[in-house]
Amino acid sequence: MTKKFEPLDSGSVPRFAGLPTFMRLPVAEPSEVDIAILGVPFDLGTTNRAGTRHGPRELRNQSSLMRRVHHVTGLSPYDRARVADCGDVVIDPFDLMRSLDIIAAHYAGVREAGALPLTGGGDHLITLPILRGLAKDGPVGLIQFDAHSDTYDSFFNDSRYNHGTPFRRAIEEGLVDPKRFVQIGLRGAISDAGNYDYARGMGVRIIFIEELVARGVEDVMAEARAIVGNKPTYVTFDIDGIDPSQAPGTGTPEIGGFSTREAQQMVRLLDGLDIIGADLVEVAPPFDPSGLTALTGATIMFELLCVLAGVVERKGKR
Amino acid sequence: MTKKFEPLDSGSVPRFAGLPTFMRLPVAEPSEVDIAILGVPFDLGTTNRAGTRHGPRELRNQSSLMRRVHHVTGLSPYDRARVADCGDVVIDPFDLMRSLDIIAAHYAGVREAGALPLTGGGDHLITLPILRGLAKDGPVGLIQFDAHSDTYDSFFNDSRYNHGTPFRRAIEEGLVDPKRFVQIGLRGAISDAGNYDYARGMGVRIIFIEELVARGVEDVMAEARAIVGNKPTYVTFDIDGIDPSQAPGTGTPEIGGFSTREAQQMVRLLDGLDIIGADLVEVAPPFDPSGLTALTGATIMFELLCVLAGVVERKGKR
Amino acid sequence: MTKKFEPLDSGSVPRFAGLPTFMRLPVAEPSEVDIAILGVPFDLGTTNRAGTRHGPRELRNQSSLMRRVHHVTGLSPYDRARVADCGDVVIDPFDLMRSLDIIAAHYAGVREAGALPLTGGGDHLITLPILRGLAKDGPVGLIQFDAHSDTYDSFFNDSRYNHGTPFRRAIEEGLVDPKRFVQIGLRGAISDAGNYDYARGMGVRIIFIEELVARGVEDVMAEARAIVGNKPTYVTFDIDGIDPSQAPGTGTPEIGGFSTREAQQMVRLLDGLDIIGADLVEVAPPFDPSGLTALTGATIMFELLCVLAGVVERKGKR
Amino acid sequence: MTKKFEPLDSGSVPRFAGLPTFMRLPVAEPSEVDIAILGVPFDLGTTNRAGTRHGPRELRNQSSLMRRVHHVTGLSPYDRARVADCGDVVIDPFDLMRSLDIIAAHYAGVREAGALPLTGGGDHLITLPILRGLAKDGPVGLIQFDAHSDTYDSFFNDSRYNHGTPFRRAIEEGLVDPKRFVQIGLRGAISDAGNYDYARGMGVRIIFIEELVARGVEDVMAEARAIVGNKPTYVTFDIDGIDPSQAPGTGTPEIGGFSTREAQQMVRLLDGLDIIGADLVEVAPPFDPSGLTALTGATIMFELLCVLAGVVERKGKR
Amino acid sequence: MTKKFEPLDSGSVPRFAGLPTFMRLPVAEPSEVDIAILGVPFDLGTTNRAGTRHGPRELRNQSSLMRRVHHVTGLSPYDRARVADCGDVVIDPFDLMRSLDIIAAHYAGVREAGALPLTGGGDHLITLPILRGLAKDGPVGLIQFDAHSDTYDSFFNDSRYNHGTPFRRAIEEGLVDPKRFVQIGLRGAISDAGNYDYARGMGVRIIFIEELVARGVEDVMAEARAIVGNKPTYVTFDIDGIDPSQAPGTGTPEIGGFSTREAQQMVRLLDGLDIIGADLVEVAPPFDPSGLTALTGATIMFELLCVLAGVVERKGKR
Amino acid sequence: MTKKFEPLDSGSVPRFAGLPTFMRLPVAEPSEVDIAILGVPFDLGTTNRAGTRHGPRELRNQSSLMRRVHHVTGLSPYDRARVADCGDVVIDPFDLMRSLDIIAAHYAGVREAGALPLTGGGDHLITLPILRGLAKDGPVGLIQFDAHSDTYDSFFNDSRYNHGTPFRRAIEEGLVDPKRFVQIGLRGAISDAGNYDYARGMGVRIIFIEELVARGVEDVMAEARAIVGNKPTYVTFDIDGIDPSQAPGTGTPEIGGFSTREAQQMVRLLDGLDIIGADLVEVAPPFDPSGLTALTGATIMFELLCVLAGVVERKGKR
Repeated sequence: MTKKFEPLDSGSVPRFAGLPTFMRLPVAEPSEVDIAILGVPFDLGTTNRAGTRHGPRELRNQSSLMRRVHHVTGLSPYDRARVADCGDVVIDPFDLMRSLDIIAAHYAGVREAGALPLTGGGDHLITLPILRGLAKDGPVGLIQFDAHSDTYDSFFNDSRYNHGTPFRRAIEEGLVDPKRFVQIGLRGAISDAGNYDYARGMGVRIIFIEELVARGVEDVMAEARAIVGNKPTYVTFDIDGIDPSQAPGTGTPEIGGFSTREAQQMVRLLDGLDIIGADLVEVAPPFDPSGLTALTGATIMFELLCVLAGVVERKGKR
Repeated sequence: MTKKFEPLDSGSVPRFAGLPTFMRLPVAEPSEVDIAILGVPFDLGTTNRAGTRHGPRELRNQSSLMRRVHHVTGLSPYDRARVADCGDVVIDPFDLMRSLDIIAAHYAGVREAGALPLTGGGDHLITLPILRGLAKDGPVGLIQFDAHSDTYDSFFNDSRYNHGTPFRRAIEEGLVDPKRFVQIGLRGAISDAGNYDYARGMGVRIIFIEELVARGVEDVMAEARAIVGNKPTYVTFDIDGIDPSQAPGTGTPEIGGFSTREAQQMVRLLDGLDIIGADLVEVAPPFDPSGLTALTGATIMFELLCVLAGVVERKGKR
Repeated sequence: MTKKFEPLDSGSVPRFAGLPTFMRLPVAEPSEVDIAILGVPFDLGTTNRAGTRHGPRELRNQSSLMRRVHHVTGLSPYDRARVADCGDVVIDPFDLMRSLDIIAAHYAGVREAGALPLTGGGDHLITLPILRGLAKDGPVGLIQFDAHSDTYDSFFNDSRYNHGTPFRRAIEEGLVDPKRFVQIGLRGAISDAGNYDYARGMGVRIIFIEELVARGVEDVMAEARAIVGNKPTYVTFDIDGIDPSQAPGTGTPEIGGFSTREAQQMVRLLDGLDIIGADLVEVAPPFDPSGLTALTGATIMFELLCVLAGVVERKGKR
Repeated sequence: MTKKFEPLDSGSVPRFAGLPTFMRLPVAEPSEVDIAILGVPFDLGTTNRAGTRHGPRELRNQSSLMRRVHHVTGLSPYDRARVADCGDVVIDPFDLMRSLDIIAAHYAGVREAGALPLTGGGDHLITLPILRGLAKDGPVGLIQFDAHSDTYDSFFNDSRYNHGTPFRRAIEEGLVDPKRFVQIGLRGAISDAGNYDYARGMGVRIIFIEELVARGVEDVMAEARAIVGNKPTYVTFDIDGIDPSQAPGTGTPEIGGFSTREAQQMVRLLDGLDIIGADLVEVAPPFDPSGLTALTGATIMFELLCVLAGVVERKGKR
Repeated sequence: MTKKFEPLDSGSVPRFAGLPTFMRLPVAEPSEVDIAILGVPFDLGTTNRAGTRHGPRELRNQSSLMRRVHHVTGLSPYDRARVADCGDVVIDPFDLMRSLDIIAAHYAGVREAGALPLTGGGDHLITLPILRGLAKDGPVGLIQFDAHSDTYDSFFNDSRYNHGTPFRRAIEEGLVDPKRFVQIGLRGAISDAGNYDYARGMGVRIIFIEELVARGVEDVMAEARAIVGNKPTYVTFDIDGIDPSQAPGTGTPEIGGFSTREAQQMVRLLDGLDIIGADLVEVAPPFDPSGLTALTGATIMFELLCVLAGVVERKGKR
Repeated sequence: MTKKFEPLDSGSVPRFAGLPTFMRLPVAEPSEVDIAILGVPFDLGTTNRAGTRHGPRELRNQSSLMRRVHHVTGLSPYDRARVADCGDVVIDPFDLMRSLDIIAAHYAGVREAGALPLTGGGDHLITLPILRGLAKDGPVGLIQFDAHSDTYDSFFNDSRYNHGTPFRRAIEEGLVDPKRFVQIGLRGAISDAGNYDYARGMGVRIIFIEELVARGVEDVMAEARAIVGNKPTYVTFDIDGIDPSQAPGTGTPEIGGFSTREAQQMVRLLDGLDIIGADLVEVAPPFDPSGLTALTGATIMFELLCVLAGVVERKGKR
């Protein structure tokens, strides 16, 4: 591997200097790398507080605090895979449905280029077109860290495409196998219980925060791993799964969430699965005066990157 | 006039107490009042930083600082007209075009109810459907305070309805008479000069901030009054016309704007015109950490209210 | 039950639209409902940083994020009881003692109207006049979640009425039975140990945060339930009981508090007690730049509401 | 003069180091100096947003940015007078009337000690007890820079002592000669016109912001100087006289105010008058996220200090 | 000219998307362009509040709001010159003197590459090494917009290189011709008058803010143009020259500054001079909660860019 | 013991009044007290985000919320030892190496005066010169609470003195006995594993956060106590050891840290050791909009003070 796909050396170029690419990586095309980090600055699916359109830029900014070698494994993802910042998907801010098509096409391209995508959103609706782009060989497994199920049917005059509905659509469209779908960390009052009934009816495993606390992270993740098995699986991480004290800058914060410590442990326990891509969504910088949410998001992205690098290492680099 | 349509007495009910209606007024239907204050929490027309959907609520909050009697005229608008908070227009956050129809229908209803509407936005696209609701008897005059002309043709794959285009559409649709249309305070670099060329070609009078500064407020407003004459005229006030030091919380701030002092003087010089309604748009609370923008917006709304109260007084109250 | 006492449907009216009443409920009189949600915008009892006078308004704002059905019980409080926003108590900002009388009279009225009050404060002194209004049939039990005991005798030239003294006064006045009084979560250095000595001497059970952590929430709450028994009990929740990372916007923050997760669990374990009212106090918006404190407060109010709805259901609705 | 009463040398002790006394001056007793800078951390007279109790501390913090030599005159006040930080007046946060007595007694002591007081507030009610302490030889002249007249009679159940009433009380008590009283910069809607009527009826000269703008600072200040003449005069500067873009952190901001440039020029034009003391009030740090208000306040205090130093120089130092 | 050196089209790629380069321009080497925009993230010369090391990144962020065509001239700088973002100078955060050498060498390289540099700082000390890099053919003229003269000799144990001294050093080193050096907007108290005495003694023309206000921008700029004449001249713009209401985020704010309107007019009046480079310094994002300072800075950089593009046009593009 | 070394009585002097000394203590010389609280406003060792130069001032501000008697022990440190605010060490903001010498000399003086120092920083490099001043009798033990090991060798052109290197230098210089050195709470990716290898190679015990969580605070602290034994030991507490939700205002935040509850428990478990001094470093107020970080820091300083008071009590007061 050339040295090209390395973060800038923070002992030579200060972290406050230079363009804030993801992880201070070079900019490249997906076809040049094993793992493509992308931004999807889209928030047209937001029911209440918008602002995740600014998420990718602030995730990049805060990712300039990231370093190279994971302190638990002692491994650097950059030694295990070629990784680059592959830029933002250029959505259309006035056309939700057209934007979904743009995103889907973009991720189909990433898949064809042979790179695993790691995405910084954007609201949670973006996971639907990402899955449309990636799940070309049949339904995939899905591990979702989140405060909300996002399996409502519709809102507002039967709007079926918004950040409360992506996973119902994904099941309906055959993108996700509901039997291989687990949702972790859900909580908070709901408008009505219909979304939970739908998900459970389809076979989705819902693990409320109360169950997570009672059983502990290791036990829950063992179950999650068993549910998705060793077949292709996508990972979606909604920042609002984390407690709002650690991630206040999001559109629909819900108190009583899991901690970043738990989040990091859960992501690390994904290691070894056949992950085909991952995203970190719902960072809304206008509601994040201290920048902590974007920092949390960028660090979770680094943890996801380490997991993806393991996949690359097992499957072989370019 | 009954005492009902009065702000809460701040010497009896502290300003920090009670529901924050506009100007601490009672809630009522347009048919009960001479002047209906409304909110339009809509920002689907925003090209860059969203957030004006939260504008009406924060304008209401800050309007709890408003008082009753104008210090220059010594008059209270509440002695001259019945005024109430007539609530928000319930838009559809996932359907821009449907929302425009909802707004247009709502303002047609306000017009039919016989009330003059004073609106807190919302992005500037809302003025288009407001005009559709009000300009039922032919094109109206328009006085626009703004940093931008908002007469572009389209953006993003020919999107023709966004907050950069409302006044081109309003001219095309025959809602505004371009010969009775004046734009005051424009400035800032432009994507291309086509919007100015279009507006001028139609007869719109554009007064850049430089001309405003050179000639002074009184001279400019005398010209503006002459342009619209004594026929029905709408007034639209984009908060970004004001300098961002006094109104930072807006989506496309532009330095070098007019001051609130100039703004207040300009609005006062509207007195005597046949104003059929007015709006204050583009307050984006997520970008307004000190709340100053909403305070400025609420105070401009009070000045507009005083002008509208004069119209009511001349034409006769209910 | 009519449908009237329902929150606005967030799938029809966006959460950012409309007047921010508590939980997006209709405004009504206590006599119309089973549970009256009220605000007491009072901070004259504050020893250091004021600002809780703005608490009710921001609690209402953030409560627009609340939903209907509790995810653990699957129950909606609005199906079990009629609930409304019954407005703010109009205190006198220049007369502490007169304000206490106003509050006491107001809550006596709520009690006579037959509604259970759920209050958003305000500083903690307001619980004293609330108890004066409610404890008409003899001393009540009290469960207090808090960082501080609030049982000092006096400060500043023998001021006996401030937010450090309400529960000493409540015991002295026979409003609270000290044997049925438990304080949970106390911590932090104290000016002197006299307040603890007084409380313990009267029979109050003090559970420091260290004990809570060591024994766990369930064990502690079992004891608390035993202490108050099945007789009338009031619940007071000082937001500073919660760790300041989750509730920074308060006048006397104290690090090392219980988490929102623990708080939610503790409130849920109140279910089945004979609760006659509850309050959530000490939210100080000027010290809450991200709004998280008011969000936390509003969610705890929702949890308290669910408990109160259970009381109504057991005792019978109107 | 000894070197003792000098600010710390910022070329030796960095501005960020050391205790933030006013102007980085030593702490001393009024009897040791010619000019005593004091804080009055009092906001019990506030009708709406409290927080000026924190004003003195933040004024001190920002005053660490001040330097020594006035750039226009080339003079240092510290060469002309002995100046020190004489600490805060210890008010009683639960007893408004007692606090007024404490303040009055404190300033009587300053006067007896032979020092000219320069005060950082605190809400505007503090000027009343300051005048009680200073105006021992009969009514004094008064120059007031402000957005509001503060000559209301009462609020809230006939509360006669709050920050809307101090100057009516001061006239009634014979502390101020209304014929030698000028108010500059007033503006904004009023609850009712009674306060202006009262003031004018007593002979107070009110100069609205509109008149100030029309005539210019020099002309207005010439009139102000003529009104107070060469007899003892007090100067009170409410930070809300300045435009809220330059001083957002205050309880009752009013757009359209005078600029800091105008404020500085006006204060400089006080030079030569027989000033017996001055204050800068209504800085409310909780509403000042950028710290600009306290910086503005501290700089105006420096300008007032230079004027007071001229008085000392003319009358002779200790 | 190829289309390559154009900002991203904001009607195709939303302003919130993509890497935030200066003006959304492509990244290139100085040798490829006529005008090189660079960042110098350096604040080791700061006497009080650090943070300008983060200036270039936030200037880039806010510059994504800039557009193409100047509204007064109707000209686009991108039609007149090739312009690119040429990245940051990589300074050494632990070695002030070495960093100065790095910067000087870097700008010597830009000069040799034939590009005019436009710089976003960084504290004001960076102008010294920039001049060392550019003034290879003898002393240049200098127009400085600033609140401070920055001509002190030393601070803190004879530190001769900090942001209070660059222009004394530049004169001593023969980089600037003091007879062709004008400072505009100076104000604020000074530690001692020695810096003004030095500057004036060398022939530097100091124009205080008071003189600027009295004479007006046009008259002052005519004098400034005459002072530097038609020989090579550098322009340095310290953001603290602008009033802190419009640029609060800076290390040593000074109230009473010139407005952005005046600033824009002054920069436009540089047109036609032989400008060899320009900088905008002292933007400190940690003290800029609303982002207004960086927006102001980015807009002034656009105005400077337009002036530089005129120089290129007159001298001939590559 | 005289009453002199007591905090101001918050029941007589409100917490918002008076100069904000550490813990509201009197100012004194180290020779007058048993425990000297000092500030070191130094951030020249910072690799990325500066701002800890403002740490001491904000720690003092927030320490005005501290009280006297520890709620667990029932003891007041002020009954056990004479304690005062001994001011700031006056560093040189332009000379890192000279500042280190100033600090070392200052702490040698504190040691000679016979006081135990408790320090509020400043970046973590300050611990190196503090140890130089204190470890005059041979290497001391060290307990470090931190997210980072700070045992790198150098950065940026072989800079060996910055906040990533102090403990490597301290070992090399014989100030710390690496066999009696334990680091608790470390986590986060690293630039390279060399620093851990070095530390472990020297015998330093590194306890990652994962181990701390797995074993619990009591077990880990028992080990830490055994490691340092009953010989002289210094304690250094980097605020970034605590989770950034509870301490966001720091230069290199790292998610997943220990909680304040854990931090308090760990510090309390230091009781009985032979502590010769302690510091709390890396509080960066410009990145702390809510002030929570400084509050957390001040409270940890109070806990450390209680431990130091125990040392004094055992060894005998002056």
